[in-house]
Amino acid sequence: MIFTPDRVTPLQARRLGIDTRQEPIIYLRADSPVCRSEGFSALSRVLVRTEQCQIIATLNIITGEMLRRGQIGFSESAWHRLKLNTNDSVWLSHPRPVQSLSHVRAKVYGHQLNKPQFQEIINDIVDGHYADVHLAAFITACGDDKLNDTEITALTQAMIDSGSRIDWGQPLVIDKHCVGGLPGNRTTPIVVAILAASGLTMPKTSSRAITSPAGTADTMETMTEVSLSLEQMKQVVQQEGACLAWGGSVRLSPSDDILIQVERALDIDSEGQLIASVLSKKIAAGATHVLIDIPVGPTAKVRSKEAADKLAASFNSVAAKLNLNIQILYTDGSQPVGNGIGPALEAKDVMAVLQNDTDAPQDLKQRALSMAGAMLEMSGTVEPDTGLEKATTLLENGLAWEKFCAICTAQGGIKQPDEAPYLFKLIADKSGKVDQVDNRRLAQVAKLAGAPMDPTAGIEIHVKLGQQVQPHDPLLTIHAESSGELNYAVDYLENHPEIIRLKSKETEQ
Amino acid sequence: MIFTPDRVTPLQARRLGIDTRQEPIIYLRADSPVCRSEGFSALSRVLVRTEQCQIIATLNIITGEMLRRGQIGFSESAWHRLKLNTNDSVWLSHPRPVQSLSHVRAKVYGHQLNKPQFQEIINDIVDGHYADVHLAAFITACGDDKLNDTEITALTQAMIDSGSRIDWGQPLVIDKHCVGGLPGNRTTPIVVAILAASGLTMPKTSSRAITSPAGTADTMETMTEVSLSLEQMKQVVQQEGACLAWGGSVRLSPSDDILIQVERALDIDSEGQLIASVLSKKIAAGATHVLIDIPVGPTAKVRSKEAADKLAASFNSVAAKLNLNIQILYTDGSQPVGNGIGPALEAKDVMAVLQNDTDAPQDLKQRALSMAGAMLEMSGTVEPDTGLEKATTLLENGLAWEKFCAICTAQGGIKQPDEAPYLFKLIADKSGKVDQVDNRRLAQVAKLAGAPMDPTAGIEIHVKLGQQVQPHDPLLTIHAESSGELNYAVDYLENHPEIIRLKSKETEQ
Repeated sequence: MIFTPDRVTPLQARRLGIDTRQEPIIYLRADSPVCRSEGFSALSRVLVRTEQCQIIATLNIITGEMLRRGQIGFSESAWHRLKLNTNDSVWLSHPRPVQSLSHVRAKVYGHQLNKPQFQEIINDIVDGHYADVHLAAFITACGDDKLNDTEITALTQAMIDSGSRIDWGQPLVIDKHCVGGLPGNRTTPIVVAILAASGLTMPKTSSRAITSPAGTADTMETMTEVSLSLEQMKQVVQQEGACLAWGGSVRLSPSDDILIQVERALDIDSEGQLIASVLSKKIAAGATHVLIDIPVGPTAKVRSKEAADKLAASFNSVAAKLNLNIQILYTDGSQPVGNGIGPALEAKDVMAVLQNDTDAPQDLKQRALSMAGAMLEMSGTVEPDTGLEKATTLLENGLAWEKFCAICTAQGGIKQPDEAPYLFKLIADKSGKVDQVDNRRLAQVAKLAGAPMDPTAGIEIHVKLGQQVQPHDPLLTIHAESSGELNYAVDYLENHPEIIRLKSKETEQ
Repeated sequence: MIFTPDRVTPLQARRLGIDTRQEPIIYLRADSPVCRSEGFSALSRVLVRTEQCQIIATLNIITGEMLRRGQIGFSESAWHRLKLNTNDSVWLSHPRPVQSLSHVRAKVYGHQLNKPQFQEIINDIVDGHYADVHLAAFITACGDDKLNDTEITALTQAMIDSGSRIDWGQPLVIDKHCVGGLPGNRTTPIVVAILAASGLTMPKTSSRAITSPAGTADTMETMTEVSLSLEQMKQVVQQEGACLAWGGSVRLSPSDDILIQVERALDIDSEGQLIASVLSKKIAAGATHVLIDIPVGPTAKVRSKEAADKLAASFNSVAAKLNLNIQILYTDGSQPVGNGIGPALEAKDVMAVLQNDTDAPQDLKQRALSMAGAMLEMSGTVEPDTGLEKATTLLENGLAWEKFCAICTAQGGIKQPDEAPYLFKLIADKSGKVDQVDNRRLAQVAKLAGAPMDPTAGIEIHVKLGQQVQPHDPLLTIHAESSGELNYAVDYLENHPEIIRLKSKETEQ
C-alpha cells in the first residue's frame, strides 16, 4: 500500500448508520479538499487508513449538507471493519491496483489458475479489497464447471488458509453436508443428535441459506443460539460431543461468507465454488470424515444421475488430494422433505422427529436415519450393515432428543420456534393424484414469503407425490411475517398453478 | 410488475444528494413501517413507483437519524430517473424476479442465447432492472470470445433496438472506429475534418474512454461542446456535413453506456461486447460505411496478427449480417501515436496536425491521412489509389482545419485545451536506443495521473522507438491536476522502470 504523507490533515470519522451489507462505503463531500487533491470521484476505490488498520472502500459523493467539511461518513460495514469511534482521525489515498484481479481476468480468458493465484484472490477478498462487481466477476468466471479438480483443490486450500482452522484433538471428527436444492431437507440436526448420542464427535458448523429458503444455521437459530465464538463452540463440543453452530462467526473459510452474499444476488451455481465452499468449511472445522448427501431429482439442484456422478467424481478427487475421507450418498430429490419449508417450519419437523411424535414426517425421519446409519458405519464404530438399526434405536429410545436438548442448552438455551402471523391456504380445485412437485418454484414461493430473513416465513406442504386428493383438500399453506410478502408469494403461486400438479383420472393416458 | 395497493400510505421523497453513479439507491429507516410490512432488508431490490414512472433500486437501510419516519431518501441517479420533486409521493413494493437474469445464467452455463433473450437482457438493463453485480455477471459471462457471431449479431441488434436510431436521409453516411489499446491514437477529429472538407457526410458520435486514458469524446470536450441533443447534432451535420459529438446524450445504444461503467471497474475485455458496442453505435447513428482501425502490437489491445484476423473475421461476419459496409485496416500498434496521452494533451496534437504546425507529430498525421484516404476510396468518391493524395491536399491546404473550426463553432464554440498545474519529468539515466515502449503501462500511468476524468492529466512522450537518447534527455512528462494523483503516477513509474526501455550499446547482443 502507498504511504499516506503525514502532512495531510486527517478527516474526522462520522458514523452515518447506513447498512450496505458486506461492501464498505465511505461518504465525502464533493467540495472536500481531499476529493479534489486526490482526484476521487463517485465509486472510486479508496484506501482508508486509521492509526490502527486500513481497508479499501467504495466512495459515494455527497452533494448535500449531510456532512460538515473535514468529515468523512461511514457505512456500518466500513465503520465496524475499521473499529472506529466518532471523530477518529482517518486518512485517504489511492489504493494500488488490486493485482489479483489480473488472475480473475485470466480466468475469464480461460486460463487455469494455480494455488498462489487463488491465494492472492482469496486473501484480497478477505481483506475487503474486492468491490461487489469484482466478486460478481470472480463468481461468474468460475461458474458452472469452469474450474478443474486441480483448481478446485487449490481454491479450497486457499480458502482454508485464509481463516482459522480448528483442531479438536480427536482422531475421528465426523461431519455431513447436503448439496442443497431440496426444500425442507433438514436432516442435519437429527443426524447430529443421533451421532453425538452414540458417542461420536460431530462439531457441526453450518452456513445460512445461499439461494434456498433456509440453511441449517437459519433453522437452528429458531431453536437456540447459533452465533458461537470458537471458545464457546469448543466448550459445547467438549461437554456434549457435538454442536450445531453457524460457521460464519468463527472465521472458518471467511471468504466463503463474503462470496455467498453476492452468490445470493446472482443465483449462479458454480460446481467448483460449491465443492471449495463445502470442503474448505469442513476441513477448517477440523473434520476427518464427511458424508456428502446429493439429492437427485428433476427439479432438485442436481437433476440427473449423470450430473450427480460428475459432481461426485469431483468431490472424491478433490477430497483425496486434501486427505479428507468422504462418502457420497445419493438421495431421492423428487419432492420436498418433511412438511415445512423455511427456518421455523423446518425446525418444527426436526423437533417432531426427535420427539418421536406420531405425526412426525416419516420421510424426514427415514432420510436422517439412513444418513446417520451410513455415518456410523463410515466411522467404524458399528459393524457393517448395522448402522441403520443402531441409529433407529438411538432415535426411538429418546437418547437423540435428550442429546439435542443438551446441545441447545449448552449453546445458550432451547426455545420453541415462533409462528407466522399471516397465512394463506391453497386448496385443490379438483380431485386427482399428486403427479409432480416443482421444488424450485416452491422454494421461490417460500422466499417471496420472506424466508430465510423472516424466520417463521415459508410453506407447509400437506400432500406427497402419489397422494389422492379431493376438491377443497388443502395442498399447502404459505406462512409470512408481513401482508406484503404474503401477497407476493400468493401472486407468484397464482401465476404458476402447476407447482403442485394434480392428474385427474380423466386426463390419465 | 405487481400492482401496489392504493391503501398503502405513500412515502415522501427526499433528495439526499448522494452520487452513486449509474446504480439507483434508495434509503429507508430500519423502523420504517414499509420496511417491516414488505420485509425489505439492506441490498433488497425494490420496485419504486411514483405517479408517473417506476424503477428498480437497491435499498440501503438507515439506522441513524438521517431520515424522518415516512420519508424515503434517494441517490442522485434514482432521483433523476424518477424525475422527482421534494415530498413527491412514492410507493414501494417487491419487484418480480428479473426474468432475463435466467438468460445470463444460461450463458454462464455455456448455452447460446438468441435475439429475444438478448433483447430481454438489454431492455432490462436500459430500464435499470440490473444491479451492478448483475451487470458484472453479464459482462463476465460474455467475456473473451464466449459469444459466437450469431450471438454477437443478436446482441448488436438488441442494443440498436433499445435506443434511438438516426436517419440522415443520405445514401452514404461514413464513419470510423478504432479498436482502442493504443494510447494517443487520436486520428478521428483529423479524419472527420478531412472527409467533411471533401464533401462527405460524417456525423461522428464517440464514446468516452472505457479502460483507456482518453476517448475521442473526452478529447473533443477539451476543445468544444460534445453533449449535443439529437436536434443539435442534426443541425450541425446539416450545416457542416459532420459533427464530433458524444454519443451518450442522444440515447444511441443506451445499454452500452450503462455496461461501460461496470466494464471500466472490471477491466475485462469481451470480443463479442466490443463488436456489439461498436457496430450498434454505428448503425444506430445511421452509418452505411464504416472503417475499423485495428492497431496491432505486442502491448496494444490486439497483440498479434492472428488475434487481429480472428477479430476482423467476426467484425466482417456480423457487419454482413447487419447489412453494414465495413472495411478493416490493420495499423502499427507498437508504440503510442503522437506526443500526448490524455484528453487535453491529445487535443493539442490534433490541433497541431490540423494547423500544419512544423512540430506536429508526423506519425499521427500519416495515420490520419492513410485512414482518410482509405475512406475516400471506400466511399467511391475518388478513383482507386488516389485517396491518400486527395486527403493530403485537403489537410495541407488548410481546408480541413477550416472545416474543423466550423464544426466546433457549430457545436457551441472552439476553445484551447487547458494546461495541467502539476508536472513531473522522467529523464534518461543512461544513453541508449529506445528499444520497447509498454503501451499498457503508459496508459496505466496516465490513468493514475487522473485521465480521463481530469481532462488535462496524462503523459507527454518525448521519444519514439529506435531513437537514440543521452543521459538527462527527457523521456516523458506526467501531467496531473492534483499533487496526490501526480504522486501515484510517479510511484507507479518508479516501480516499473522498463515502461520505456533503453538498450545501450554494451548490452546489445
